[in-house]
Amino acid sequence: MSEFDLIRRLHERINGVDAAVSSACIVGIGDDGAVLDIPSDRQLVVTVDTLVEGVHFPSTTDVQRLGHKALAVNLSDLASMGAQPAWFFLALTLPAPDLSWLDSFTQGMGDLARSAGIVLAGGDTTAGPLSVTITAMGLVEPGMALTRDGARNGDLVVVSGQLGDAAYALELLKAGGMPDYHSRAALENPEPRLKLGRRLRGLATSCIDLSDGLVADLGHILKASAVGAEIKLDLLPGSAGLANLPEGQRWQLQAAGGDDYELCFTIPANRRNELDRVATECGSPLSVIGEITASGELVCLMDNGNVFVPQGRGYDHFNSGIRP
Amino acid sequence: MSEFDLIRRLHERINGVDAAVSSACIVGIGDDGAVLDIPSDRQLVVTVDTLVEGVHFPSTTDVQRLGHKALAVNLSDLASMGAQPAWFFLALTLPAPDLSWLDSFTQGMGDLARSAGIVLAGGDTTAGPLSVTITAMGLVEPGMALTRDGARNGDLVVVSGQLGDAAYALELLKAGGMPDYHSRAALENPEPRLKLGRRLRGLATSCIDLSDGLVADLGHILKASAVGAEIKLDLLPGSAGLANLPEGQRWQLQAAGGDDYELCFTIPANRRNELDRVATECGSPLSVIGEITASGELVCLMDNGNVFVPQGRGYDHFNSGIRP
Repeated sequence: MSEFDLIRRLHERINGVDAAVSSACIVGIGDDGAVLDIPSDRQLVVTVDTLVEGVHFPSTTDVQRLGHKALAVNLSDLASMGAQPAWFFLALTLPAPDLSWLDSFTQGMGDLARSAGIVLAGGDTTAGPLSVTITAMGLVEPGMALTRDGARNGDLVVVSGQLGDAAYALELLKAGGMPDYHSRAALENPEPRLKLGRRLRGLATSCIDLSDGLVADLGHILKASAVGAEIKLDLLPGSAGLANLPEGQRWQLQAAGGDDYELCFTIPANRRNELDRVATECGSPLSVIGEITASGELVCLMDNGNVFVPQGRGYDHFNSGIRP
Repeated sequence: MSEFDLIRRLHERINGVDAAVSSACIVGIGDDGAVLDIPSDRQLVVTVDTLVEGVHFPSTTDVQRLGHKALAVNLSDLASMGAQPAWFFLALTLPAPDLSWLDSFTQGMGDLARSAGIVLAGGDTTAGPLSVTITAMGLVEPGMALTRDGARNGDLVVVSGQLGDAAYALELLKAGGMPDYHSRAALENPEPRLKLGRRLRGLATSCIDLSDGLVADLGHILKASAVGAEIKLDLLPGSAGLANLPEGQRWQLQAAGGDDYELCFTIPANRRNELDRVATECGSPLSVIGEITASGELVCLMDNGNVFVPQGRGYDHFNSGIRP
């Protein structure tokens, strides 16, 4: 299969066989670049993520789930900015053009792309060690993008979904164990919180997606907003499976585990009563886990009032081993 | 050095220490995504290219020149679309965070970025086998992007600069020889034809940049435009160094060598007299090398009137060896 056949196949399997590239994409796959019409009443949100075999996922990863996850981590960034997904560009480096590998990969990626309403508009394919770089673009009303720098003293800290399952599954896999279905799905099939991210425009004062772990990612909000936070560990939402673990292990997974792809955001305390409606509308459980302080520090409190200090402060790609 | 220090360093060294990200980039490096204001009277042109060590460049490549070239090949795509460079996103995968490597790399990339007027607006850094993926964005007036599909029977085929020097340098390097300064610069320091690309709006009926070789790339225009072309080999512009080679070797390098990063475009025959002025204004030599035919075939004619068939039809990343 030539590079050109490969590109055509990616387009057909991800966008759908009969899909013209969307009407706002004037020139799509097959020219030197894509030409996009950006609506004049929108700003463009752009995010880039790379997944490298052996660094972000083990070589045993199910290929269809890899296709899903490579796009999901980018969509999660669009969600955390409050953006509506629009187009993405796929740079795929493969040791060799393997048709059955590619069909599984595009199955996972295409299913998610179509359900999220995002169109593959271009990219590059080349030979080399397996890695996937996606540039995803979304649209947001001017000035409405959710950023990291708006958290204020007294705001509530909220997270969606449950934390720690993905990290627990990875811990088990590394130890040669077998995670339960729920944890494994959290690790390999994260669902980006796109609807929630859109709904938070005008409500959240700051927002980030949890990829590197709660402590690291909430830390980015605190730094950008020049504030601190006090988190109550027994408020962290977790699955029934995690509830049976020793507290120290559970908190480590939930506070510093990473790969949750849930949203962590802040809201003014006087708007707390809106959360139930948002959760119902978006199908995302929401939990208040603490509040913003003026201290500049992030403090994680155990239920006896003592401070818990997680090992590590979240994932750093240059100072850690393999990552899902 | 942590991932976050690395990102800060990339920003400072590429955009300039004091550079705020441009005014149209509302949120830049350091959030989940960049937020860009696209002028309402422009379309967005997006292109993605990956360079992998051992595939697109040998591990002995000068790092500063690698930084230049990784951005140059993307700018060349923007040039061939007639777009004005605006922002780029850098996904950099490195075996380890090596400060002196990084400083050389960002020196080459930053010099070119500032001279081209393009701003680093985000990206991703991760550990893994060395590769560079850049997503570059440019702006073009609505409907004015140069594409591959507008060549018409009777149009003239034009190329900028000289062809074959980069391929000659690579051939020498592979054989253990030492290319002259001029050829080596063509290979490692290509200058994207940005000014020319902009100038061709409204003049060229189709345009492409020469990355995979004249025959392969002109072939894309012919296929997209459903036409053929007749090229006269003795009209191909070449350096003095190439003129001394046997004709067969020279034509092979010029017609199928690749990595020229010159523009190949078509114009209506009755506008030929405008080329001299364009060449002068843009500082790009321009050569008419043939014309578009109705045949659907690409024919390369030797000066005795016989047809020359180059070996291979241009570079295919999955069916060839190392490439500069």
